[in-house]
This record gives sequence, structure tokens and C-alpha cells, in this order.
Amino acid sequence: MAEPIVRDAVIDLNCDMGESFGAYSIGMDEEMLDLITSANIACGFHAGDPRVMERTVRRAAERGVGIGAHVGFPDLVGFGRRNLDAKPEEVRTDVLYQIGAIYAFCRAIGVELQHVKPHGALYNMAVTDRELAEAIVEGVAAFDRSLILLAPVGSEMARAAERAGLPVAYEGFADRNYNPDGTLVSRQRPDALIHDAGIAGPRVVRMVRERKVRAITGEDIPLKVHSICFHGDNPAAVELARSVRRQLDEAGIRVRPLAEIVWRGQ
Amino acid sequence: MAEPIVRDAVIDLNCDMGESFGAYSIGMDEEMLDLITSANIACGFHAGDPRVMERTVRRAAERGVGIGAHVGFPDLVGFGRRNLDAKPEEVRTDVLYQIGAIYAFCRAIGVELQHVKPHGALYNMAVTDRELAEAIVEGVAAFDRSLILLAPVGSEMARAAERAGLPVAYEGFADRNYNPDGTLVSRQRPDALIHDAGIAGPRVVRMVRERKVRAITGEDIPLKVHSICFHGDNPAAVELARSVRRQLDEAGIRVRPLAEIVWRGQ
Amino acid sequence: MAEPIVRDAVIDLNCDMGESFGAYSIGMDEEMLDLITSANIACGFHAGDPRVMERTVRRAAERGVGIGAHVGFPDLVGFGRRNLDAKPEEVRTDVLYQIGAIYAFCRAIGVELQHVKPHGALYNMAVTDRELAEAIVEGVAAFDRSLILLAPVGSEMARAAERAGLPVAYEGFADRNYNPDGTLVSRQRPDALIHDAGIAGPRVVRMVRERKVRAITGEDIPLKVHSICFHGDNPAAVELARSVRRQLDEAGIRVRPLAEIVWRGQ
Amino acid sequence: MAEPIVRDAVIDLNCDMGESFGAYSIGMDEEMLDLITSANIACGFHAGDPRVMERTVRRAAERGVGIGAHVGFPDLVGFGRRNLDAKPEEVRTDVLYQIGAIYAFCRAIGVELQHVKPHGALYNMAVTDRELAEAIVEGVAAFDRSLILLAPVGSEMARAAERAGLPVAYEGFADRNYNPDGTLVSRQRPDALIHDAGIAGPRVVRMVRERKVRAITGEDIPLKVHSICFHGDNPAAVELARSVRRQLDEAGIRVRPLAEIVWRGQ
Repeated sequence: MAEPIVRDAVIDLNCDMGESFGAYSIGMDEEMLDLITSANIACGFHAGDPRVMERTVRRAAERGVGIGAHVGFPDLVGFGRRNLDAKPEEVRTDVLYQIGAIYAFCRAIGVELQHVKPHGALYNMAVTDRELAEAIVEGVAAFDRSLILLAPVGSEMARAAERAGLPVAYEGFADRNYNPDGTLVSRQRPDALIHDAGIAGPRVVRMVRERKVRAITGEDIPLKVHSICFHGDNPAAVELARSVRRQLDEAGIRVRPLAEIVWRGQ
Repeated sequence: MAEPIVRDAVIDLNCDMGESFGAYSIGMDEEMLDLITSANIACGFHAGDPRVMERTVRRAAERGVGIGAHVGFPDLVGFGRRNLDAKPEEVRTDVLYQIGAIYAFCRAIGVELQHVKPHGALYNMAVTDRELAEAIVEGVAAFDRSLILLAPVGSEMARAAERAGLPVAYEGFADRNYNPDGTLVSRQRPDALIHDAGIAGPRVVRMVRERKVRAITGEDIPLKVHSICFHGDNPAAVELARSVRRQLDEAGIRVRPLAEIVWRGQ
Repeated sequence: MAEPIVRDAVIDLNCDMGESFGAYSIGMDEEMLDLITSANIACGFHAGDPRVMERTVRRAAERGVGIGAHVGFPDLVGFGRRNLDAKPEEVRTDVLYQIGAIYAFCRAIGVELQHVKPHGALYNMAVTDRELAEAIVEGVAAFDRSLILLAPVGSEMARAAERAGLPVAYEGFADRNYNPDGTLVSRQRPDALIHDAGIAGPRVVRMVRERKVRAITGEDIPLKVHSICFHGDNPAAVELARSVRRQLDEAGIRVRPLAEIVWRGQ
Repeated sequence: MAEPIVRDAVIDLNCDMGESFGAYSIGMDEEMLDLITSANIACGFHAGDPRVMERTVRRAAERGVGIGAHVGFPDLVGFGRRNLDAKPEEVRTDVLYQIGAIYAFCRAIGVELQHVKPHGALYNMAVTDRELAEAIVEGVAAFDRSLILLAPVGSEMARAAERAGLPVAYEGFADRNYNPDGTLVSRQRPDALIHDAGIAGPRVVRMVRERKVRAITGEDIPLKVHSICFHGDNPAAVELARSVRRQLDEAGIRVRPLAEIVWRGQ
């Protein structure tokens, strides 16, 4: 497949949401839906339930936010954050099942399913595990070859999708520092995170305009991204997103859903 | 909607299947798939898992057996057989979720999803509970208004589907005795079940040809059915199905999937 | 067994807690632990997980709060609030399982398990369902005949425990209105709840001192209680509890755990 | 603690059981209970439910078979066979929870809980993962320091238990080949398994009498075992167990539960 085309001065903003479950509420979804353009919605395996899924799909659709399947390991008590040694066959069919489940709510509401983003441990493992990455991609492709896979540039996930001819969107992070090779600085390190919107905002503007970011080592590295990942876990994270969004707007950068950014070869 | 049209001398045979889960195997699916024309496949709430679902959809598709979503309560340990006081909102969204999940495997394999049949306690409750029946129908209709709802004639489920304009298939039972009002004799009674294929076979032939059945009280009652429900739980049940199927064939009755029998107004 | 003996001018205060699960937090446990004397701790079926259970048992123990098994239906997504038509055999063994689970954390920490209180739908159903009430009591008695069952006076649960010779504690509600027959005014009615601590406080003081409460109809009715049930769901509920607790202290009423109030025939 | 004392010419035979769940039956428990002396009973996380647990504890107790908690990862769909990157804190509390749950049924029936054996992936991981092994041992010790941990000789599990002063029983396998270092030949290799009772029987007799086994390389290695692990998954496995048991009986070797073999320092 041809390389995804990034139109100039346009970016998608994505956030995980729909992670509430039954009586349990989590995440500041309402606030984030006003700031982002693509929503990664939990599908009931690591979080979410059918009521939460429907409500979240509806609210995203009302705001023109692109809808994504946020597929995870079947580990509610661990919130999908624990590595699980699942077979490729298990991952592929779990992905397919979850995509179908969220698709049902999209179809009922009359809105398109735009993308798929693996969650937590599944995402992290598939960054470097080729077999797992291919299992995810096979699950996505089996459902709909025009679904966009949202993955870090240079990851096995991105490569597997490209080999399979699936549209891919690369995501970057506003609140994370980068190593010189383009990978994220480990959360084990104290300098992994960027909390200051005054730093994060200009970084993101530069990612979009110049396709570069300053690595933790001080050098500039190339970084091509279609989407920036935000978090809605807490008020500070929402505030960071709000500030970065405002800085993007002020810089004249258009913020649009993935479907308008990533070429899907149709 | 107009009343479903039953073509003469044709009947569908349906059976629950795909109820295995992880390391657990249950049901004689392989044997039943050679005898029936519509499969009610569990969707992971009361039974089934993504691997079992995919395998069962594939095997049904290979034999030209129509595929149905067998939607149930989220009660794996109770196998969906326990009444649950779920709100209509919960039932509607649980149904939608499960339909989407099984649809994913149909779509991946390139086969149509034909029908929906509620399972166990959900089915039994929705026979008489109008609100619950409507919740199920809303879930089905929200996904696809051409999906056939498989339900007993005269049930609230059937009525709710008809009011909503959904195609409905009425199902009868080869192995159950009927009350004079067309309801099933309670399993609490010793004469609820018919184990003798020599009795069951001619009864089913008569249901199809004459649209009548002899009630437990000895009188003939009208009974219009599009499908006969069989069970694959044990060798005796499979043997009964095999014998009835043979008697139908010998009587020159065509056995075809629901999609070829029930008019779907398209 | 002889009737439970209520010592004068002493009362227990109980509250459900330990209902968080994995990444999900719910309830203002810390605040409530400073106000109550008996904690009903979820056991993993309707809410709670092993980490939450251990932490909640430890914190309760540190404050001298009596520990209870808050046993519920296996319905996490419904938070145990949905009626489930479980067989007595299922309820009995589910109760036994959950008591054992919470007992493990008590034993590890070196603190006694004091009582059992069914949760949500299980509690509500067992108020009037004798068979279910007996199943619960059998589960409790099978584990330890000195465990106190916390139940409303006049309920089938209380009667079943008394017939079986189990110690029983009657509970009253600070924030609920009563019918003349001693049952609670249905939550369907607008006057079901009492939100004003200025009303709730004196009512509770009177329950303890005079063993009476004013019914919704205006007449005084007898009400014998060993414990008052509070809720820690929201700041207003905590505030009500705090105020009532203060009024009890000011009235010179001792607030002590159930184990010091209910005679256990040992 | 002093090293476990193995009395001459006596051995325990153990088997996993109680792995049925709800409507699902698995394992030939009845047949195995007549052959073994210690039962590893699933506790509801990877398999088993409260009804199955109670029934299995009762049947084991009736035959004088020692009862063990077969603790596993919370992964029903994976049958506890998939490695899960759980934190030590999670493993410790999951173990404690499961021990409490099975203990409840032991206590109700009036029989002692004898031992703990981790299941599947948890067992395999804890053979070599010291931190995980210590988490398991802490969970066991927190409940009861006289519970016997059943583990392979030389494993991190065995060492962690010994450091903690817990009684340990070493287990060997009748149907597996050994490497010269005493570890099991990987199941990936075609010569991992021994299916022939004519070979397995004498090997086990020799393990007991001579504390030796012939490794896959042809040399004799020392192997000290208190228990031999059998499987009840299929008729061939049961037949192997039956034959080995008969050969042990014929060799005059006493077959007794762990509690009579392993010194527990009481």
C-alpha cells in the first residue's frame, strides 16, 4: 500500500473513553469530547458495557467525533493493563468480536466506525511483537479493510497494517518525552512525562508543522503523526488537552477526525 | 407488516449451538449441523467465546445452514437459564451488543446473519413479558430490520416483532406436548416431553402439512410454524432429530433455512 | 435461640463499603470508617476485588470497626441490584464461597469476621422470600454459627436466622420513612427518603432510647434495632451520617460494633 | 524450617479436579478420586464454581482424599493456562481469596484443608519466577502456615516456601520425561510424554524406593518426591493412573495423603 498521506497543517486528537462499567464511572468523557476529534471507545473486555458503549458512541457522533474500537484483553479487574500471553488466534478473534460489538452501536445510531486502537497491554505488546501485531491486523482486516489502525509510527502494529494494506494513522503524544530513536521514554524514568502545557503545546504544533520533535537527548528527530493521544483520566490531563487544543487553534492548525486525514484508498 | 407467508410443504429446523466455552465442550454441534437448516449460535454472554463463535459460524456456513444470534443474559455460570430482572434498556443494549459480536464473524467469513433467537430465561420471560419482548425487538431492529426473529407463535415476542414490522418465524417443538391454547405443557409435568421419534415424526409432518397438532387433551389445535426446534445436548436428542429429519424427507417436505421461508419484505 | 438482647442506650452503625473494583473507585469509605462501627464489605461477586477487600478489612480493623461479609449475586455489571432467580442451592453455596473469601483476609490480618449482610437484590428478595432467606442462613450457619446476620426486623431473613439459632441484628434506617407495619416506604414514593439530618438525628435517637419511630402516617410504631444503616455513596449521605453520629454522641448513646451488642449465645 | 521428611515406601498421588463450571462438565473426577490421595480443587478463578467446589470437597472427604486449593489466574476463558503479568500484590491477594473460598466448603463439611497447588500458567511461571513464587507463598502463609505447598523440587516455589518455613511437598510426574538437571522435558519435544503404563509404573516405583529416575539422556538422576501428579482429563490418562496405582500397591508401597507424609512442624 502507498504510504499514508498527511495533509499539511491538520491533525487529529484522540482519547480513550467509554471506560465506565455498570455502577462505576471513570474518565472525564464529556469534557474530552469537546476537545478531541477521534474517540477510542472501550468494547466491554477491559472496560465498558453495552450501555456505556451506546451512550459514548452517541455523544461522540453528536459532536462529529470519529468513533474507534478500543479493543483490549479480557481482563476487567486488571483494566486490560496486564500483559497476557494470548495466542494470535485468541487475539484475532477477540479483536473481531469487540469490533463487531461496537459496530452494532454505530450502525444503530447511523454513524461510521472509523478506526481501531488496541488498549493498554495489548497496545504495548503489539508495538514490538510482530506476531501479535499481525493477529490484531487480521482481526481488523477481516471485519473491514477501510478501518484505520491507530498505532505509533515505527511499531510492529503500524508495519503489520501497512503490509496488509490497511490504512494506518500514526499517533504521537503531547505529554510524553521521546528517545532519539522515536520511541517513548519509559514511564519508569522521572522525565517520561510532560505536564507543562507551555511546553507540550509548542511541541505538538511543531510535530504538525515541521514533523519534528526534540528528543530527551536534546536533538531534533523526525516524527510523522496523524493524531495526538490525550488522556481524560483526571482534571490536570483534561486541562493539558484543553490548552494544547487552544494552541493548535491559535496556530491555525485544523483539527479534524482521522477519516478526513488518512487516505483509505477507496 | 403483513403476516409472514409460509410456503407449503417446507420447514426450517433449528438448534442451539456454539455453546462451548474455552476448555469446555458442550453439545453435539457437528452431528446437528448435518440435520438442521438454521443454527442459533451463542454470543458469549450465556455461553460461547470468540473462537467457538467463529468456528461455529464457519461450519454452519459451509453446510448452508442459516446463522442466528442466540442472545442471552450475561450469566455464564447459570448458562443464561436464570430469570434476571434486567431493565428494558439493559436487554436492548445487551441484544445489540451480542448481535454485533456474532455479525463480525459472519462478515469476516462473508455470510449473512439470518435471524435472532433469544436464549433460555430471556426467551422464556419474553414469551409473556411485553416490555421485555419489545426491548429485544428494539435491539434487533436497531441493527437490521431484515433480521428474522425466531419466536413461538402467539408470544409477546412474536407480537412485538410484528408490531415493529420485523420478519418473524414461528417455531414449534418436536419433542414437546402442547396445551389446547397452543402453549407448551410445563416441564414440571411428566407428560411434557415426547421422546419417541415414532410419535414426534408424524406430529411434525402434520404441523407442516396440516398446520395442526394434537394437544395433550386429545383435541386438534391449529399450529402455524416456520421452524421446528431441536436439541443437540445428548445422543438421544440427536437421534430424535435424525429420525424426524428422515421422516420429513420421506414425506417429501422440503427442509430449508428460514431466509428461504420467511418473507422479509425487501 | 433466645431473642437477641439489646442493651440500653447503645447502637451499632453500619455501612456498605469495599465496593471499588480494579481501576474503578466508588464510595467514600475512608470518611465512613470514622463514623460507623460495622462495615459490610463486598466479596467480589457484585463488587470488590481481592485488593479492595484486603485494604478495606485492614482499614476497618485499624479503627475497631466490626467486619461483615456483604454477600451478593454474581452480577458485577448490575452491581448486584437486579433480582436473579437463583436456586436456593446456588444462593447457599454462593454465600458460603463469599464468606470464605472475606474470612481469608480477616484471618490474614488477625481480626474476627463479625457479621453477614446480604446486598442489594439478594437482601431485598430475602426480606420476603422464605426459601431464599433460609438458603442464606444455611450458608452462614455452615461456616460459623456465631456469625451475626444483619437483617430488617420482621423479615424472612431475620425469622430464618432465629429459627436456625443464629444471632440476628435488626437494622433500621436513618434516611428512610416507615409504613405503619414497620416496613420501609417504597422508593417509588416521593416521601421515601429523609434528607434532613435535623429530622433523621432525633428519629435515630428515639429508635435507640424509646424503640419507637413515627410512621409516615403520623402514628408511633415500635421499632427494635441493633444497628442503623448508613450510605457512603455521596457527600450528602456522608454528611447525614456525620450529623446523626454527632447527635447520638451528644445524646450520650454509646456507638459500638454489633459483636458488643448482639448476644451470641457462646 | 527443617527439610521435609519423606518416610520410606510411602507416596501421595495428586490430581487436579473440580474444574467443571455451571453447565459445563470436564474431567473424570469420580474415577480419579478412587485412585488418588490428594485432590487439587479449582477455586473459581480459572475453573470451578461454588456448587462444583462443594461437591468435589465432599466427595474427596468421603474417600479420605486430602483437599487442596488449586489456585489459578482469573482467566476462565483461558482455563488459567495463559501467562498473565500480574503484580505480586495481585497474586498474593488472589491466592488468599481462593484459599478462603475453598476453605469455606472444607469448614462447612468439617474437613481440613491440606495443601495448596498453583494451577497452569501460575504454576509454570512460579517454577522459575522468584518474586511470583514469594507472592504465592505469602498468600498461603497469611492464611495458615501449616498448609502444605505442592511444588516441583528445585523450583522457586519450593525454595520460597522453605525460606518462609512452610511445609513443602515435592511432586514428580508419572507421564513426563526428565532432563538431566531434574526439570521436565518441554512439551514442545515429541519425547516429553510417557504414555506407556509399563514404563511409567516402574519409574514411579523407583522414584519412591530409590529416589531416582532415568533422565531422557539415559543417566540416572536423584529425584525426591512426596507426590506423583496424575491427570484425569481423558480415559487414557485415567487408565495410566489406574495402572500405576496398581503397580504401587503390588510393590507394597503405601499410598497416603500428603498430610501423613509431609512433616508440618506442629
